[in-house]
Amino acid sequence: MNYSISSRMASMQPSAIREILKNTANPDVIPFAAGNPSPDAFPVKEIENITQIIFGSHPVAALQYSVTEGDGHLRRTVQQFACGREPDLMREEDELIIVSGAQQGIDLTAKCLLNEGDVVLCEDPSFVGALNAIRSYNPRLVGIPMESDGMDLLALEQALKTEKNVRMIYVIPNFQNPSGVTMSLEKRRALYRLAKQYGVVILEDNPYGDLRYEGEHIPAIKTLDTEGLVVYCGTFSKIISPGLRVGYVVANRALMPKIIVAKQCSDVHTCILSQMICDQFLTSCNMDAHFSNLQKIYRAKLTLMLDAMEEAFQGRVAYARPQGGLFVWCTLPQGVDMLEFVQAAMAEKVAVVPGTAFLADQSAPCSSFRMNFSTPANQQITDGVEILGRVLHQFIR
Amino acid sequence: MNYSISSRMASMQPSAIREILKNTANPDVIPFAAGNPSPDAFPVKEIENITQIIFGSHPVAALQYSVTEGDGHLRRTVQQFACGREPDLMREEDELIIVSGAQQGIDLTAKCLLNEGDVVLCEDPSFVGALNAIRSYNPRLVGIPMESDGMDLLALEQALKTEKNVRMIYVIPNFQNPSGVTMSLEKRRALYRLAKQYGVVILEDNPYGDLRYEGEHIPAIKTLDTEGLVVYCGTFSKIISPGLRVGYVVANRALMPKIIVAKQCSDVHTCILSQMICDQFLTSCNMDAHFSNLQKIYRAKLTLMLDAMEEAFQGRVAYARPQGGLFVWCTLPQGVDMLEFVQAAMAEKVAVVPGTAFLADQSAPCSSFRMNFSTPANQQITDGVEILGRVLHQFIR
Repeated sequence: MNYSISSRMASMQPSAIREILKNTANPDVIPFAAGNPSPDAFPVKEIENITQIIFGSHPVAALQYSVTEGDGHLRRTVQQFACGREPDLMREEDELIIVSGAQQGIDLTAKCLLNEGDVVLCEDPSFVGALNAIRSYNPRLVGIPMESDGMDLLALEQALKTEKNVRMIYVIPNFQNPSGVTMSLEKRRALYRLAKQYGVVILEDNPYGDLRYEGEHIPAIKTLDTEGLVVYCGTFSKIISPGLRVGYVVANRALMPKIIVAKQCSDVHTCILSQMICDQFLTSCNMDAHFSNLQKIYRAKLTLMLDAMEEAFQGRVAYARPQGGLFVWCTLPQGVDMLEFVQAAMAEKVAVVPGTAFLADQSAPCSSFRMNFSTPANQQITDGVEILGRVLHQFIR
Repeated sequence: MNYSISSRMASMQPSAIREILKNTANPDVIPFAAGNPSPDAFPVKEIENITQIIFGSHPVAALQYSVTEGDGHLRRTVQQFACGREPDLMREEDELIIVSGAQQGIDLTAKCLLNEGDVVLCEDPSFVGALNAIRSYNPRLVGIPMESDGMDLLALEQALKTEKNVRMIYVIPNFQNPSGVTMSLEKRRALYRLAKQYGVVILEDNPYGDLRYEGEHIPAIKTLDTEGLVVYCGTFSKIISPGLRVGYVVANRALMPKIIVAKQCSDVHTCILSQMICDQFLTSCNMDAHFSNLQKIYRAKLTLMLDAMEEAFQGRVAYARPQGGLFVWCTLPQGVDMLEFVQAAMAEKVAVVPGTAFLADQSAPCSSFRMNFSTPANQQITDGVEILGRVLHQFIR
């Protein structure tokens, strides 16, 4: 049988990261390529207890079909939680629904808003999982270069002026994946003004917002949203568990019914046991103490990695210290072929992600790679960075 | 903000059934409109024990990110299970992946195979959740009338001959939702031959296969598939738990990579705790005994409903006894307006689904409605059918 693949899926390839991850299931490989929470960061005991309580009190509800929008109690809990972290996140005309991870929120929003050939603007580089979800509806993806405080707004304005049928601007304002960059408040405001001026939806993805290790909180773009321009995606993957697949979407109630129908078509509803676990966790645990603990774990790992990189790279690799999140974006010196470097590192059993994976145009030249510090154990961080330093040395000699 | 909704989603409406379900959360309403497993059918104690074992032995794996294809151990377990139930279900060139319910399998297959304007043939009536997933990629849906042993094959052949760009035939061969019809072996073979002749994919959905209450097992169409024409969707929603959202897809390895990429874009992977629960359940429980128990529960409920209907409807409503599944398809006598009847029943707090919800063309005339016997308690079955009889009497007088 010769399958006739739809035009939207015909050129789609698996995410480079997940393919690398698959090849690095080998425990001998040092996992700087992943984006997994640290095993130490999982509240295992609490979730085990919560699960017992759920089966003791609501066993049938935990196994039965549920509603597409998400469990009513969890929706109220998450609303309270999210608006506690980001005052003004929701206005009266906004609704919050539960999705199967922020990934699903991005996928459904793209499905509802994009026709083939429409234009989506994104930070360049950006999260490949989101870019692929967007690509799977066959729009044209236009990358806007990143600066140290977020998107280059002149380039953004130029794109808004010249590109036809721009439908969406996709951004990760906090500790962006992969660049680690945090968008300044000035840029958030200016981005919102531009989106409003050109009538374009902002898809705001905030998976790392609670993982800030230094500096002051900057409000989400959604908190500025008086027009219903912003679709906001949150997730419990980085602060409770990614395996449970629970996230949420906040959007204007004029748009939300379409997102709900799209979700109904996609998976009927999010695993209800996962929803009940998140609900109990958010209501029964001291979330401030939990976040402090996560921040402490990750701040230490980040510092360990940066200290090791300073010693191993001796100023030859460019990177900025991120204020939070899970990633450090590293740029090799001129003359070093990035893909060859990544392959040489892999041969030494150190996995990093080639920067090309994160570009709007994956065939563009790129001399950067992404390092993750949450997944590896501390000894792996020290050893792995030292190996990268040796590998680099071979390229520079 | 005036949202510019994609053409594929612009005309999509929420599933009539799920909307009815939402309005019948009221425990006073007798739920003949649902398709939920009976609360008695959930192996609560086993799942509670299994969950404790998982958190005791693999707590981090149960909470961490996993691979898109599904947990390797579960994939092998399901392959063994499914091929035990349906010998020859998989040939060497077939692969099996885990999805978030069969609904996701249908959605992803449609996403990979359908361009806007392509034609999909389906049984008429058919499962509205699947039809909506298919509709959400904006093809033209052409319904093929149902007979007592499955699709009208003359009508199918006519459609294959005359319609352009037919990409897919969607069927539920066992105890079809909503008609209760089981496709005969002869029709399965003839359907396969036609699909092969015209080079069209068959999407075979088998959620109820293990819920047979009488008659002999008929092999799945996928077991006839020497050409890789058939994409087969299975699920644990009806035999373990729908809330866990675990199903599977079997397809040829030339098509599967696209389905996997589409899943990666949709939700990264299926809840790993749910996957581990299903894996443990399938490997540690006596599945034959479990199925016998489910069949006993549902056979009794079906018989109770049919007996009550015989008395209440006094031959004025047409229906066939299904050999399995969860539904009885009822057709009102001429002269009774079906929508008025359904509304009158709802006013008496008995919820059934109007048959129009299941049609390829939902504006076509229809005098049928769908009854579910798995969700209501026995007393509700007796009371509810009696009420329907009284309501019918008002329409006939």
